[in-house]
Amino acid sequence: MSDVLIAREELDFLLWDWLGLDRVIARHSPDMVDRESADAILDLSARLAADSFLTHYKDADRIEPSLHGGAVHALPEIGAALRAYAELGLFSASFPVERGGMGLPGLLANASFAQFLAANVATAAYPMLTTANARLLLAFANEAQIEQFALPQIAGRWFGTMCLSEPQAGSNLADVSTRAVADGADALGDRYRLSGNKMWISGGDHDLAENIVHLVLAKVVGADGTIGAGTRGLSLFVVPKILPAGDRNDIAVAGLNHKMGYRGTTNCLLNFGERDGAIGWIVGAPGQGLPQMFKMMNEARIGVALGAAALGYRGYRHALAYARDRTQGRPPGAGAGPSQPIIGHPDVRDMLLAAKCYGEGALALVLYCAKLVDEAEHDPDAEALLGLLTPIAKTWASEYGLAADDIAIQVHGGYGYTRDFDVEQLWRDNRLNPIHEGTTGIQALDLVGRKLRDGAALGLLRDRIALTVAGAAGQPQLASLAADLDAWWQRIAAAAGGLKGVDPAVMAANATALLRAFGHGVAGWLWLDRALLCVDAPDEPFRGGKLWACRYFFEREMPRIDAWLRPVEARSDLVAAVPADFL
Amino acid sequence: MSDVLIAREELDFLLWDWLGLDRVIARHSPDMVDRESADAILDLSARLAADSFLTHYKDADRIEPSLHGGAVHALPEIGAALRAYAELGLFSASFPVERGGMGLPGLLANASFAQFLAANVATAAYPMLTTANARLLLAFANEAQIEQFALPQIAGRWFGTMCLSEPQAGSNLADVSTRAVADGADALGDRYRLSGNKMWISGGDHDLAENIVHLVLAKVVGADGTIGAGTRGLSLFVVPKILPAGDRNDIAVAGLNHKMGYRGTTNCLLNFGERDGAIGWIVGAPGQGLPQMFKMMNEARIGVALGAAALGYRGYRHALAYARDRTQGRPPGAGAGPSQPIIGHPDVRDMLLAAKCYGEGALALVLYCAKLVDEAEHDPDAEALLGLLTPIAKTWASEYGLAADDIAIQVHGGYGYTRDFDVEQLWRDNRLNPIHEGTTGIQALDLVGRKLRDGAALGLLRDRIALTVAGAAGQPQLASLAADLDAWWQRIAAAAGGLKGVDPAVMAANATALLRAFGHGVAGWLWLDRALLCVDAPDEPFRGGKLWACRYFFEREMPRIDAWLRPVEARSDLVAAVPADFL
Repeated sequence: MSDVLIAREELDFLLWDWLGLDRVIARHSPDMVDRESADAILDLSARLAADSFLTHYKDADRIEPSLHGGAVHALPEIGAALRAYAELGLFSASFPVERGGMGLPGLLANASFAQFLAANVATAAYPMLTTANARLLLAFANEAQIEQFALPQIAGRWFGTMCLSEPQAGSNLADVSTRAVADGADALGDRYRLSGNKMWISGGDHDLAENIVHLVLAKVVGADGTIGAGTRGLSLFVVPKILPAGDRNDIAVAGLNHKMGYRGTTNCLLNFGERDGAIGWIVGAPGQGLPQMFKMMNEARIGVALGAAALGYRGYRHALAYARDRTQGRPPGAGAGPSQPIIGHPDVRDMLLAAKCYGEGALALVLYCAKLVDEAEHDPDAEALLGLLTPIAKTWASEYGLAADDIAIQVHGGYGYTRDFDVEQLWRDNRLNPIHEGTTGIQALDLVGRKLRDGAALGLLRDRIALTVAGAAGQPQLASLAADLDAWWQRIAAAAGGLKGVDPAVMAANATALLRAFGHGVAGWLWLDRALLCVDAPDEPFRGGKLWACRYFFEREMPRIDAWLRPVEARSDLVAAVPADFL
Repeated sequence: MSDVLIAREELDFLLWDWLGLDRVIARHSPDMVDRESADAILDLSARLAADSFLTHYKDADRIEPSLHGGAVHALPEIGAALRAYAELGLFSASFPVERGGMGLPGLLANASFAQFLAANVATAAYPMLTTANARLLLAFANEAQIEQFALPQIAGRWFGTMCLSEPQAGSNLADVSTRAVADGADALGDRYRLSGNKMWISGGDHDLAENIVHLVLAKVVGADGTIGAGTRGLSLFVVPKILPAGDRNDIAVAGLNHKMGYRGTTNCLLNFGERDGAIGWIVGAPGQGLPQMFKMMNEARIGVALGAAALGYRGYRHALAYARDRTQGRPPGAGAGPSQPIIGHPDVRDMLLAAKCYGEGALALVLYCAKLVDEAEHDPDAEALLGLLTPIAKTWASEYGLAADDIAIQVHGGYGYTRDFDVEQLWRDNRLNPIHEGTTGIQALDLVGRKLRDGAALGLLRDRIALTVAGAAGQPQLASLAADLDAWWQRIAAAAGGLKGVDPAVMAANATALLRAFGHGVAGWLWLDRALLCVDAPDEPFRGGKLWACRYFFEREMPRIDAWLRPVEARSDLVAAVPADFL
């Protein structure tokens, strides 16, 4: 079964051959890790993912978290897997040594983490949330808060959450109405009493860790007793389930959300301050909540994208294994004789090539971004490029990872629709990813309204694409694809430029179409970039397979860009203009 | 809640204004039904669907059928709903009066049935299977078999199944290995003893009806004790669960399939003849099993398509209702102020327009085919056109109905991912439809390998499209769409012609892409055809909405045809040529 996780050959190709993990290590943490120890971490991650995460994949779906006596109970196997994960120090993988971390570059830590996401995305969500929480504290909290709240999370003893959404404010944080009233100060900083309802809190309550550290977005109540409108008054608070003195904070679980998938991750409606107000400490300065969250948003979105890619990649691997094993009918022209494996049917190969393009393509795109996270620490260009590619990676990995899982069901036929196989669950699990951490529509507004506003980041991207085009133009096998890529990008860039300064409603009406065109353009670029590493080994299955997939992507996927760009190029107002009662 | 079912205004528009149900009635059953009685049937169907089918939609998903002591138990509410359905005579709706039927034209019967499919597809599957079974018996069985097995199904007292697939033979019926040994003759005809395993039998066992009539595809054992290879030896047998004398037949439930959706429909692995052989009677002549099944295939596939369309349409209606109700943020340019309904956001309108195009478009396409079923009784051209459009309707309704449900989840945001709302279940339920009654890949082979083999049916289709183009060319609002449609169809027809005579593997490698292009071409044609009825009322929400949706489909959906056709036009061998170990 573990052969459905991420193939080591794939990771080695991406990390060492393509992304140059050795150079990332040399720059980032030469004293902490070398090829040998990196290999050991990848080995160990694959083994633990297969032995402790994959093993309860279906049980965690079947036996949902339950709420009894105000407390949420999760499947014990989840806790056992996460304790094993903590014992190996994996919560701390990418944290600095001086904070108890392993000091690994983010690229390596993400590659390790991808195995856990592939094996069991719902269990892996706990460390994802916990490390994001701790990283935010390291960036903005005071030293006492870091020691009290971040270090136990880096050690994997306490888990963390992000409490942003409210029932009336999902995507729109300006409408957050959780209130924070000043309540003096102590060794942990300025103390507040919080009250309000927080919705969709993943890991919001459970019995898997000693304590839960909530990072809560709320508005400070002014001298007049009111909170401000809009996003400006938003501040960030650290609000533990168990207070430092050992007593329970004023946080109640008002309900559990019963999800279609991702069920092992508890998801709660939390009421803060039903009694005297939940005690919390402000992180950084008042009013900085939104910029603080945004600072972490790229990484959180790339985390979601990594999960989506891992689920999609795994779907492709299940489909491939099934298509090689399952016999059914005979391919056209094969004549009579016994049934043959369905991988011989052209339609099945068509599906597998698409799933390969989506699954491997999404994984490559997300790890490319993970490398940019490392580079962004010392390179503003990398940071700008990361900002531009984040909505792309989030959306493309979510939507095409899901598409890979959809194909995986189809390859399995009726069997894929049953719960005897894993692919239906992969599809259900992955359906969350185009929604959380910003829906596709939100990503499109981020791309068009913010990331493309000045042309600098797009210029950086086009410089990198030009390098790939130049390299591929010199290879007879790839020259025509290079010309295609160049032509598509001229159209994408022109269409993006054409949206500048138009009516905001028209811009918004075409943002998602541009995002989709952009996403396929990026995916195609990275397929060609990886194919460049394979031109010398066209007859070798692994590298030759990359060349076939790249050709497939350019033949059957890149032409879709045309349909997305047409309305953008026309600056169509159709979607903005249709009257609401005509829908 | 019932406003999420199929809007009466939509049905009236499709049936009376567009498809001319009055003319169908005049030709088919002028003495049986008029506008008033047809309206009464539609009213009654909507009410019963809302009151008895919709009400247990979620319970039937939550509480799966169970297998105890060799018998399958289903949710009692399913039985109650179906008894009410039978009491109103709806099992018999489209059967001839002389067989105890209501004698309704298929178009009206399908429109009535669409409400039940929309309300609860899993419960509605029982009458769908039962009427298909009875119709096949009426066509091929002897009089004694009809009286014994068909009439109780037309009355809704007994239910029926189709037993085709086997564990080793899903899509490929040539590999069926269920054996039938001659066992004399009696009043019901030539009797046989059957043994073999049948997989994926919907309604294969349950406690919802007095008896279950299985139609079983099996091969007659020859004098040498063997069965033939291939499809030629396939024959059809009627094999009841309870024999006419009242004793149980030799049919055992070997297992229940646990599905991701469609859970209220029991789905069984049945073992025939574990003891002495299950007793069955051959229907028609030996060796006629496949042509008999094919005769029914168009209708069965259109039944699946109708369910897929109904689920997609309902998803769109849920999304629309939610988008009008849910407030969240403010559309671009709207300034400050309270939250506004999300229908104001351009991205949400974009999604709703796509869902409207898919949901309403699929329903229109399937009802168009249902009308062809009526016409095919006396018009060979209609029969040929129906044959051509059946794989299109099956695939397009399945895939875009599912896409409408996917959009419905997205419009609901995180709420759509929870089981508090219906849209996640609609999506899960609808995922079966691209698989059963022939996967998308099978439909593509049917289209390219059979339906397009001679150009006659395509010629008939293009004649009808030309009429629409000519009509729309004379309308200033639609003239440019008419030109677009004409141009797309020239390309589609040329690409289809280009696949003739090529290597079978290359043909198969491009069949699905051609099917997709063809499907969008048909959907676009029918959108324009319906828009023609709306040009005089562009400011009226219902008809004006159709014009907006038609423009949207031509602006954002029809251009996708280009990407599908490119490899077909190039007769690409990429998918056929990729080595299996390179995938």
